[in-house]
Amino acid sequence: MAQRLDGRRAAERVQEALRRRVDQLVSRGIVPKLVMLVSEADEISLGHVRRKARFARGAGLVAEIRTFRPSEGPGALRSAIGRLNEDDEVDAILVQLPLPAGWDEGDMLSHLRPDKDVDGLHPQNLGRIAFGRPRVWPCTARGIGELLELHEIGVRGKVACVIGRSPLVGWPIAQWFMAHGATVIQCHRQTPSIATWTKQADIVVSAAGAPGLVGAEEVRPGAVVIDVGITYTEDGPRGDVDPGAAARASWITPVPGGVGPMTVAMVAQNAVDLCAMRRGG
Amino acid sequence: MAQRLDGRRAAERVQEALRRRVDQLVSRGIVPKLVMLVSEADEISLGHVRRKARFARGAGLVAEIRTFRPSEGPGALRSAIGRLNEDDEVDAILVQLPLPAGWDEGDMLSHLRPDKDVDGLHPQNLGRIAFGRPRVWPCTARGIGELLELHEIGVRGKVACVIGRSPLVGWPIAQWFMAHGATVIQCHRQTPSIATWTKQADIVVSAAGAPGLVGAEEVRPGAVVIDVGITYTEDGPRGDVDPGAAARASWITPVPGGVGPMTVAMVAQNAVDLCAMRRGG
Repeated sequence: MAQRLDGRRAAERVQEALRRRVDQLVSRGIVPKLVMLVSEADEISLGHVRRKARFARGAGLVAEIRTFRPSEGPGALRSAIGRLNEDDEVDAILVQLPLPAGWDEGDMLSHLRPDKDVDGLHPQNLGRIAFGRPRVWPCTARGIGELLELHEIGVRGKVACVIGRSPLVGWPIAQWFMAHGATVIQCHRQTPSIATWTKQADIVVSAAGAPGLVGAEEVRPGAVVIDVGITYTEDGPRGDVDPGAAARASWITPVPGGVGPMTVAMVAQNAVDLCAMRRGG
Repeated sequence: MAQRLDGRRAAERVQEALRRRVDQLVSRGIVPKLVMLVSEADEISLGHVRRKARFARGAGLVAEIRTFRPSEGPGALRSAIGRLNEDDEVDAILVQLPLPAGWDEGDMLSHLRPDKDVDGLHPQNLGRIAFGRPRVWPCTARGIGELLELHEIGVRGKVACVIGRSPLVGWPIAQWFMAHGATVIQCHRQTPSIATWTKQADIVVSAAGAPGLVGAEEVRPGAVVIDVGITYTEDGPRGDVDPGAAARASWITPVPGGVGPMTVAMVAQNAVDLCAMRRGG
């Protein structure tokens, strides 16, 4: 029976370590500040940024939430980003996705100052990944990395099957595994038989948002299973992986309580890293 | 026995089509101009840029080679890039790699104006790949794509095993296949058994620069084999794939005369595309 990769407990450990770093910065007069921009009309997104703010404040950062009205159009959000780019006290800016329907997310993210881009999603930051030296890894990828590291699960030389290739989640995760020495099989909607590949992987990462996509028998005995998907069904939140896979896996993330809390934690950790880089901490 | 994916002949067809596009631009007073920067001390690189210039001129572009002295340091090259960025008549700039030992290539490429970056290697352009909309694909990736397309070899739903993950070659190739609907297995130096994966692939792309890396029996019957590697040995140039693989493959690129000429051709094609985008052609 697999051991749980408990994201909540890991996030608490991250928060403690972070608090010590923030204390040191504050003692030198540097107060790391994170500002998050979110649509006032998107309840789910508001919930996400509140969790991110709560975690960041718990680690000693200043964390602000600023809402925008979709009716004011993308120009107003671009202006808000521009002001935060210029504000020397702001270390980290997060634009909570998804943006209102029809808005161009890639374009919006390209207006962030790359050295304040806490999610690491500015095109230039994504590009740095190809050269193996991002400023900060996108939060989900980094969260998975920290979760593995805290449990001393190595990646180098392993085979990682990553399902999903969204620019925000699946793509950076695949890049993270590659940069850390794994052979990566990247599957997606056009992959005829995903199970062919999950069965051969030491580490299965599913970021498709499709409940039950990976069957209990479709991971190999001893595999590490990271379930990034979370879908809200009538029976509550469900991951991509059949929970029965726990019978074969060596490690598995619960849903919820696995990757989610670590993603939240990495927003604060990235913000502190960006603060230290920009202000010489 | 495999059919040859003849890059020389395909490049000729590209050149003809390109010449017609350039003629149209010229008739409107727009002359596409490509400038290539290369170390005067690097004979192999000089050979590459001369081939690129010859092809581009054959398609009707203005193509200039400007050499720099390594002894003048990276600052002089950065200044040269800056002047070309500002020069409205220059549509496309190529910095021939590798740079002199110890120079930071990623940093140098980041000084290019992204909309004149003919190799598509500016960090911002690499980042756009993650969002599935590069201005232009890096030349090797695009060259392979055109070669497949000219031979009506589809990619969507296929399994592509890409060996190598260099930011200039292996990485963009893997991204190209992913963007075109292939399931990608990306192997590299830390992959314990590359043959495990090449044997399962519909398309094998090797960009490792290691002669004989892929054995004749290590591709599956009917596979498409793209050999990007080229190593100059005492017995002449050799690819990564044992030529005996032609007995099993359905299609195979010769080395030399496969991917190389198409990479050269794509410099001119990307330059014309950038010209048309920037000057409204």
